[in-house]
Amino acid sequence: MSTKKVALVIGAGDATGGAIARRFAREGYTACVTRRTAPPLEPLLAQIRAAGGQAHGFGCDARVEEQVVALFEQIERDIGPVEVLVFNIGGNVNFSITETTERVFRKVWEMCCLAGFLNAREAAKVMLTRGRGTILFTGATASLRGGSGFSAFAAGKHGLRAVAQSMARELGPQNIHVAHVVIDGGIDTAFIQQRNPQRYDDLKPVDGILNPDAIAENYWQLHCQHRSAWTHEIDLRPWMEKW
Amino acid sequence: MSTKKVALVIGAGDATGGAIARRFAREGYTACVTRRTAPPLEPLLAQIRAAGGQAHGFGCDARVEEQVVALFEQIERDIGPVEVLVFNIGGNVNFSITETTERVFRKVWEMCCLAGFLNAREAAKVMLTRGRGTILFTGATASLRGGSGFSAFAAGKHGLRAVAQSMARELGPQNIHVAHVVIDGGIDTAFIQQRNPQRYDDLKPVDGILNPDAIAENYWQLHCQHRSAWTHEIDLRPWMEKW
Amino acid sequence: MSTKKVALVIGAGDATGGAIARRFAREGYTACVTRRTAPPLEPLLAQIRAAGGQAHGFGCDARVEEQVVALFEQIERDIGPVEVLVFNIGGNVNFSITETTERVFRKVWEMCCLAGFLNAREAAKVMLTRGRGTILFTGATASLRGGSGFSAFAAGKHGLRAVAQSMARELGPQNIHVAHVVIDGGIDTAFIQQRNPQRYDDLKPVDGILNPDAIAENYWQLHCQHRSAWTHEIDLRPWMEKW
Amino acid sequence: MSTKKVALVIGAGDATGGAIARRFAREGYTACVTRRTAPPLEPLLAQIRAAGGQAHGFGCDARVEEQVVALFEQIERDIGPVEVLVFNIGGNVNFSITETTERVFRKVWEMCCLAGFLNAREAAKVMLTRGRGTILFTGATASLRGGSGFSAFAAGKHGLRAVAQSMARELGPQNIHVAHVVIDGGIDTAFIQQRNPQRYDDLKPVDGILNPDAIAENYWQLHCQHRSAWTHEIDLRPWMEKW
Repeated sequence: MSTKKVALVIGAGDATGGAIARRFAREGYTACVTRRTAPPLEPLLAQIRAAGGQAHGFGCDARVEEQVVALFEQIERDIGPVEVLVFNIGGNVNFSITETTERVFRKVWEMCCLAGFLNAREAAKVMLTRGRGTILFTGATASLRGGSGFSAFAAGKHGLRAVAQSMARELGPQNIHVAHVVIDGGIDTAFIQQRNPQRYDDLKPVDGILNPDAIAENYWQLHCQHRSAWTHEIDLRPWMEKW
Repeated sequence: MSTKKVALVIGAGDATGGAIARRFAREGYTACVTRRTAPPLEPLLAQIRAAGGQAHGFGCDARVEEQVVALFEQIERDIGPVEVLVFNIGGNVNFSITETTERVFRKVWEMCCLAGFLNAREAAKVMLTRGRGTILFTGATASLRGGSGFSAFAAGKHGLRAVAQSMARELGPQNIHVAHVVIDGGIDTAFIQQRNPQRYDDLKPVDGILNPDAIAENYWQLHCQHRSAWTHEIDLRPWMEKW
Repeated sequence: MSTKKVALVIGAGDATGGAIARRFAREGYTACVTRRTAPPLEPLLAQIRAAGGQAHGFGCDARVEEQVVALFEQIERDIGPVEVLVFNIGGNVNFSITETTERVFRKVWEMCCLAGFLNAREAAKVMLTRGRGTILFTGATASLRGGSGFSAFAAGKHGLRAVAQSMARELGPQNIHVAHVVIDGGIDTAFIQQRNPQRYDDLKPVDGILNPDAIAENYWQLHCQHRSAWTHEIDLRPWMEKW
Repeated sequence: MSTKKVALVIGAGDATGGAIARRFAREGYTACVTRRTAPPLEPLLAQIRAAGGQAHGFGCDARVEEQVVALFEQIERDIGPVEVLVFNIGGNVNFSITETTERVFRKVWEMCCLAGFLNAREAAKVMLTRGRGTILFTGATASLRGGSGFSAFAAGKHGLRAVAQSMARELGPQNIHVAHVVIDGGIDTAFIQQRNPQRYDDLKPVDGILNPDAIAENYWQLHCQHRSAWTHEIDLRPWMEKW
């Protein structure tokens, strides 16, 4: 078994999670990445390995306690100590309040908030035994603002931010750095490109869409902060974004 | 069937919900009050009736969609139009992060946030048909701050606040007033008194503990606001509270 | 000399200050109102007196310490104890950052923030001797948000909010209620009407513009709050306002 | 004349300003540093030069418009283009509200807020001609919270934050990055050490006091951010700080 430190990214299905995994792998961390199912992770794993890094993929439903517990057990036993956890699952939906079903409201919360709690709690358990670690959460505009039509998404993201803040206050003094990144703007993904190709073509060349590697750089820098000056929350948005 | 307007208070198990029900009943509203089970509501109902008001009690698990839907159907059919909804269910618990179980985290969220969403959504449905109504949510310090040990409670209360804000932005322009009340301090309840009798005896005589009738007065005033000047959020705390 | 309580409104030059003065006068308070110069206050004084109230007008530059000190001395000596202070001076301007002169930046701050500090400090002095009183500040959207072009106005209003919050924390436990009202939307004034008559004619009949009497009602209710449940901050906006 | 880019630090009288100047000088920027008077800057200049960097000191009262205008003219003419402005002047005082004099209130605002506005405005002017630049403001706990006894300091710091936010919204889309750093905790300075040596000796060895070099690193990283992912606000506090 390797004793290299692990950076575990929960939700590496989108551009951001993958970029973060690559950034930490580049620094010598073993990247462990998860999605609901493992096969779609293969291109990311190949990419990291081609660049000389180490990477492992896991299928894990981040909302299911037993699966999350098993994931941490497996990684800690077979791969290495989880030094960094990045929780990066979203669930952005928009429905009018009367058309928001109980099922959607609950599911979005399970993805945005419950899964974040479960994974961060398991990370805290192993990090506390070592007295060190970093836990990073991906937030969104909806973490701070309940916009019209966003009751489900904003409830989930507000809840996740509360978990991050509560954990920071409890775990900071135990040498575990907990931070929350508010991403305020569109991220450069295939989804964004397909949804509005004209807008994408206008914005992308002038850096009007968040570059996943630029996002990842901030996660890395948060992890590198000297513990006399830790950040709990940053916002990230394109220079030309209205806010 | 009476055509008197209904003020529906979800969670009239504590001092605050009861005081709010009494306040609206005093103004001529038919008070409909709920708890998980109906029998413990009897003293409150008797109190309102003795004062000349009208009151009905309902056992309803506010976290269960079918029960909530049935509650609104029954009230609208048998009692009168729901003009005011007050959501007043809490769930204040404190556990260190590693001792917060999935069951607790989920249950507190269901009480604080999911139940608020379900009841407010059903209220919105009937209010939208009439183009009027008031929806009031009870918040707490944890609505704005994720304190150490409060990951579950703060996640639930942050989520509820997001729901309130999202609904306000969507429903305000449809003439439905949605407001969120942040109660920051101990409320005068039997629980508070028993937990720390000495502190209670010190604070109560000098108004250092939130008086439920004083809280209720603010809910009434929010409901009375002229629609050219609606409030979305207020805080309430004792004059001597540290914050 | 009368011993009737005084409600002192600093900045009764607009619709809001006048409405607040009338509201308190209606409840039996002696309304003392100020503007830079006294003559324009005559219609307001006549209006209050015609309704059976008592009112006094004062020319006072609220930014000048000696004038403020003299104002409080005169009122306390000749009219009655200042039970309520309302600070209601604005200074809404919009300039791009490079076109914001030092003179404008300073002047707007003196009106929005320094004057609020000076008047509230003098009020605190007399209120502390009696162990009671209410101090209310008028805020704006710019109290919470630094919008583009609003560096001067937002700096002044943010500063005033900081003063209000600091005073609330210090003076609350000394039985002086300090609250801050965030007015988020256009108020029904001659200025608003003239600036965009078409918009005014569209919005006014449907309560889309803040009614000064509706605003005033909230100041009165804040003053009436039981001290076990004091509010520090409320927002006020028309039901149909986007926010 | 050199064409090297200038990093201008207003208020390099404390540990933080000096560390920031050193950090940018290390990367090849010409460090221009100011205090009220120039002589006390000599040790810092010597330090930077000894490390192979370039540095210039200026006596400049940052609250006086003509001096600020002259400073920018001189630097742009004689030294190089101001690529980065760091505004780092504080003014932390604590007085009860009744003991806060007009002179103190005004002076603290001039230091915290007016000076920040003046320097940032002049920086914006030259940066806009080049379509690029970074403006960084040093904030404090009082930027977000009006604590008891901090009416003057919080008013100044809230005002500065409003300026930063307003400028960010206006200048971001013009390719000028404006960010605000909320420093929440004691910084390692001679002042802190002398005020409470015992506490200093307890906290310093365990990184319980903000290290100026660690702070400076964050200013540098903010400057380096890719413009598709700019941060407007970060907080910095020691891992063990209560908040």
